[in-house]
Amino acid sequence: MKKVDPQRHAVRMAHKQKIMTERIAAADKEQGVLLVLTGPGKGKSSSGFGMLARALGHGMKVGVVQFIKGKFQTGEEAFFRQLPGVEYHVMGEGYTWDTQDRERDINAAEAAWAEAGRMLADDSYELVLLDELNIALRHEYLNLDRVLDDLQGRPAMQHVIVTGRHAPEALIELADTVTEMKVVKHAFKEQGIKAQKGVEL
Amino acid sequence: MKKVDPQRHAVRMAHKQKIMTERIAAADKEQGVLLVLTGPGKGKSSSGFGMLARALGHGMKVGVVQFIKGKFQTGEEAFFRQLPGVEYHVMGEGYTWDTQDRERDINAAEAAWAEAGRMLADDSYELVLLDELNIALRHEYLNLDRVLDDLQGRPAMQHVIVTGRHAPEALIELADTVTEMKVVKHAFKEQGIKAQKGVEL
Repeated sequence: MKKVDPQRHAVRMAHKQKIMTERIAAADKEQGVLLVLTGPGKGKSSSGFGMLARALGHGMKVGVVQFIKGKFQTGEEAFFRQLPGVEYHVMGEGYTWDTQDRERDINAAEAAWAEAGRMLADDSYELVLLDELNIALRHEYLNLDRVLDDLQGRPAMQHVIVTGRHAPEALIELADTVTEMKVVKHAFKEQGIKAQKGVEL
Repeated sequence: MKKVDPQRHAVRMAHKQKIMTERIAAADKEQGVLLVLTGPGKGKSSSGFGMLARALGHGMKVGVVQFIKGKFQTGEEAFFRQLPGVEYHVMGEGYTWDTQDRERDINAAEAAWAEAGRMLADDSYELVLLDELNIALRHEYLNLDRVLDDLQGRPAMQHVIVTGRHAPEALIELADTVTEMKVVKHAFKEQGIKAQKGVEL
């Protein structure tokens, strides 16, 4: 372990504490946050579900709409569906590359958006997770303006998390916080490691 | 909504399905995955906790060690601590920039690593989340070689998730999957919005 001067360390940490305190004092706007998690890296949906767990830890009422149903992400569904305080909807069709039927995909996405729209109009939902919504937008299964209008028109204190690759530019502009997840390495793709239950599925 | 030719759409989706099927068939190595979530963007810990929820949804036994305790991340702790199948340890000191005492921080980190090391030597833990471990490594509160040895020596089927900014290069090399989270926008820092319960805390 490299030597660190305890005195200099204390000075650096005191400075960091000062910056943190100032930043927290300056950030005094109470409002619902629109958070977008995008990019090709692993962890977008997981992050949304982790925030869901956090909100449940605070006793908040939450809603989830998953815009992609398939072989994956069954762990979250099994886990969160059983909990009180969670309303959970999964779009009624498989991956778009399994169905190969655009009209059916559009109908499924619109039915899912009807659920989302209802939650976005109801201030009893304190956090709404729209998992893989960006995929539905990317394939133009939903009208982007309608989605943005519903997001903007939601109750002032409601938090919304949108996940999925290729978030549209207009959604990024509307969002308060946006994280892009970058792949540095991926076991599943590069190293021939099977998708693992718990981590990938 | 822009027009998409349903015929061409079906062809593209069939091609995507073929690629996905080939990729899944090629990835037949069963093994525990070491996943690192790093970078400055929001969602690293949340993602780890979402994977924890997913693993619990599969009925797996999981362990958590949080290497930073403070005012934040209380929602996850409240939520996951109460669940069966979860063992949860939180390092016994506050943020390093609150304590300003390097020796105390090292002792706290080492005590937390003792818990982590015990989990990494026990194959009954199917997934271990080492939340904000990278911060402890960054400040050199832990010996990096010891951490890497314990990670590498863990049971073959055990998954481990390490979160925190500034993952050391040697940890990235050892990892199977690494995601770097990039800030595109941050409400809390840029727009004077207070850290919000459920999303930030």
